Amino acid sequence: MIRSAAARASLGRVAGAGRRYVASSAQARARAAEPKQPVVVTDSIPGPQSKAILGRLGQLQDTRAAVLVGDYKQSVGNYLVDADGNQLLDLYCQIASIPVGYNNAAVLRAAQGEEMATTLANRPALGVFPSREWADVLEQAYMRVRPAGLDMVFTTAHGSDANELAYKAALMHYARTRRGAAAPTGRDLASAMDNEPPGAPHVAILSFDGGFHGRTFGALSTTRTKALHKLDIPAFRWPRAPFPRLRYPEDRFAAENAAEEARCLAETERLLRESAVPVAAVVVEPVQSEGGDRHASAHFFREVRRITRQHGVLLIVDEVQTGCGATGTFWAHEQWALETPPDMVTFSKKMQTAGFYHTRALVPDQPFRNFNTWLGDPSRALLTRAIVDEVLARGLVDQVRATGAYLKSHLVPLAIRYFRVFDSVRGDGTLLAFDCTSPELRAELLHLMRLEGVNMGGSGDVAVRFRPMLTLTNAHVNVFLTRFESVLNKLYQKHWPR
Amino acid sequence: MIRSAAARASLGRVAGAGRRYVASSAQARARAAEPKQPVVVTDSIPGPQSKAILGRLGQLQDTRAAVLVGDYKQSVGNYLVDADGNQLLDLYCQIASIPVGYNNAAVLRAAQGEEMATTLANRPALGVFPSREWADVLEQAYMRVRPAGLDMVFTTAHGSDANELAYKAALMHYARTRRGAAAPTGRDLASAMDNEPPGAPHVAILSFDGGFHGRTFGALSTTRTKALHKLDIPAFRWPRAPFPRLRYPEDRFAAENAAEEARCLAETERLLRESAVPVAAVVVEPVQSEGGDRHASAHFFREVRRITRQHGVLLIVDEVQTGCGATGTFWAHEQWALETPPDMVTFSKKMQTAGFYHTRALVPDQPFRNFNTWLGDPSRALLTRAIVDEVLARGLVDQVRATGAYLKSHLVPLAIRYFRVFDSVRGDGTLLAFDCTSPELRAELLHLMRLEGVNMGGSGDVAVRFRPMLTLTNAHVNVFLTRFESVLNKLYQKHWPR
Repeated sequence: MIRSAAARASLGRVAGAGRRYVASSAQARARAAEPKQPVVVTDSIPGPQSKAILGRLGQLQDTRAAVLVGDYKQSVGNYLVDADGNQLLDLYCQIASIPVGYNNAAVLRAAQGEEMATTLANRPALGVFPSREWADVLEQAYMRVRPAGLDMVFTTAHGSDANELAYKAALMHYARTRRGAAAPTGRDLASAMDNEPPGAPHVAILSFDGGFHGRTFGALSTTRTKALHKLDIPAFRWPRAPFPRLRYPEDRFAAENAAEEARCLAETERLLRESAVPVAAVVVEPVQSEGGDRHASAHFFREVRRITRQHGVLLIVDEVQTGCGATGTFWAHEQWALETPPDMVTFSKKMQTAGFYHTRALVPDQPFRNFNTWLGDPSRALLTRAIVDEVLARGLVDQVRATGAYLKSHLVPLAIRYFRVFDSVRGDGTLLAFDCTSPELRAELLHLMRLEGVNMGGSGDVAVRFRPMLTLTNAHVNVFLTRFESVLNKLYQKHWPR
Repeated sequence: MIRSAAARASLGRVAGAGRRYVASSAQARARAAEPKQPVVVTDSIPGPQSKAILGRLGQLQDTRAAVLVGDYKQSVGNYLVDADGNQLLDLYCQIASIPVGYNNAAVLRAAQGEEMATTLANRPALGVFPSREWADVLEQAYMRVRPAGLDMVFTTAHGSDANELAYKAALMHYARTRRGAAAPTGRDLASAMDNEPPGAPHVAILSFDGGFHGRTFGALSTTRTKALHKLDIPAFRWPRAPFPRLRYPEDRFAAENAAEEARCLAETERLLRESAVPVAAVVVEPVQSEGGDRHASAHFFREVRRITRQHGVLLIVDEVQTGCGATGTFWAHEQWALETPPDMVTFSKKMQTAGFYHTRALVPDQPFRNFNTWLGDPSRALLTRAIVDEVLARGLVDQVRATGAYLKSHLVPLAIRYFRVFDSVRGDGTLLAFDCTSPELRAELLHLMRLEGVNMGGSGDVAVRFRPMLTLTNAHVNVFLTRFESVLNKLYQKHWPR
């Protein structure tokens, strides 16, 4: 860790002046090696070291999106250390993708030693020459936490191709149910080579307004977040359904929200019935994350499942951001209490490997149809195994539920007290969010929070999303709350002085 | 290594009976730890152990494409050991993706130690929070071997998304050159969200008949190999140009081949001029690999470059399978002696990380447009660095050229002697191929070669492709030739007995 005189000298400045929150001593163990609180040693973030490195990196890659330069050797637990020695409590976690803390001891153990080295140095084409250990790794890394009803797992490289390969499985299934036992005709095969129907058919994956499912061409055709994600890129003419825009607090807007969900469900059903391009599958996130942390009720999702079944359409649940415990259950869709499980569940991010769970019915009729050279990465699967071990052994999903409840219980009254800055506190587990009252205020808040030593991220136009590690404790929440109140007071003093 | 009595006992059986070829002693050093020759201890491949493991794996994943189960701890250098203890000279190398041998000492060193462990355990969102080491790693892993004229590198996960992200860069560049300084209109942005033109425009990436560029939706729209790769998957109405079908030996068919190339070039130019969907970029492989090892002359590619420049269309060279030295130059397109470099060069496979090199002009006008969470994998980039070190330090590209020439010099006369089995020997470096006289004979040949202890792969309908590691020596070639002659004699005895 950074232990320079400058860093020590700065402690006073960043300790925060607001009300103090007290941690339960039972949770202190987990962060023994972490800083006790954030330390900010530069006047701006990125600081001078980060800027110098970004200047050099900018010769080789586009760095305009960079916030800071990480010093990952020095980072520990919930704290991200940057190239200038700033020690930030990280509630954003590499866009929601660090599961159990920087330099987690169990993950580091899995990253060392002969098994990892052999696996890294000999990357197989898994579909043709799988390793003798692969079935065991799949069992331990993925099947122990498989969603109910889904017995197989297709491993991929990242969330976008997890979704695309799930879409391909759905589209092949769709064609097979219509073709029946008949072989594809010569016209089917020839037209497929020409990118024309009937071989390359006009069949759709339906997604929801505000949904994000990745950036490659097929995934991007279902992504409906920002125009700049899609502009200038050809897309398939696939329909999009409206996603509920709920109002908060939920108990106050119960009737409006129910009506809004009913409206969206009716339109979804209409699209399944009447879409110009027939729909093979519906893809939906349990929480629209990039889209601005938009939620819907368990009832809404149960109805989506009911409607898809009724119309013979597959349901793909995209748990790339919500999976691996963040909402207080291992998979967010567990909270829907579905009668019939989804047909596929995709994952990535915190799992540190990507893929989709599926039923045996979704294996294509012939080999090599849903296929590529590497089919995932066995070395990263060893990390997934260690992460799942850690999550289960330490009961981190329960911890997420408890810590999230603690955090939310403080955010709700703060939203009332500081209503000019934020409202609409929402979410489950630690996958929480609130809306700022303007995009400009959000930018200001995120900037000030970083200078107070807390790294956070936005989603959509005005939301701030909490995407901490599963190892977040009430003590970390207290560190956050102290600094958050300090920033809220600064914003009030600046914009609404008495 | 397998040193069982059964394995030793089997040596006599597989030593091969044909003519012996003699290795140069200078090359013996590189394979000191390898078996001296293949050892096959089972009557079939996959053997009983492989079959048992595949049976279990088949509960979790589709295993119908599996050839055998690898024992990667025991594999060494050019020899793949399987779960039954068979030791196979590997000329297929995980679909052309193992660069410097199984358990290469330098790669194993890079796969161990603190730097790798830290990098594995803390995967950053590289575009937002790059590591302080990232610029150095990019320099050492990629920029030392960058293609002339291309100063930047975009890192991705695999060949398919390397191509898709290159296509996106091309499409954004196309729109920018037409939009000029004007901002996108409200109609542009709204229609992009609806997957409709003008925001999601009808603009094409032109590819060649027989080209393979990946399996995700955008890449698949440019892949033109087999109908079963494309059937049932929606595709963009992008044009395909004919790719030359050359005849061998080249000196005998010089006039026909020149006419064939001229025909394909004329049609390519016509498509650039008249395509219903305007073309933003042309993508081409230096050697069509999945498509059946189809080649064209340097003149053909120089003309493709001339035509694309003339029509203001970008040129993307897909070096996923040809890059990293396999053709006797680090990038195959170096052999074209282009006056103007390609606009982008994509890579994956032997590089063990994927991405594309590009000019600064191809950085989009705004950040976050060509973007994703991980943007590649820094831990695998450490392996790429070690691989590039090894290739340069050991002069492996020169070795590939010499070994490939040696192999080809023996294949050419064998093709004359055994003309009923194969012909059309072709290729550069060790990226060689020949055509079998029927798909059935090819299947039989590959099967028999495996039972003789040599693992090979096909491409297209009748081709056998050589995709050895860069560490292949003349001694390995001799091992191959002895067994190849033995198999050719068996095929003659069976099908054309005297």
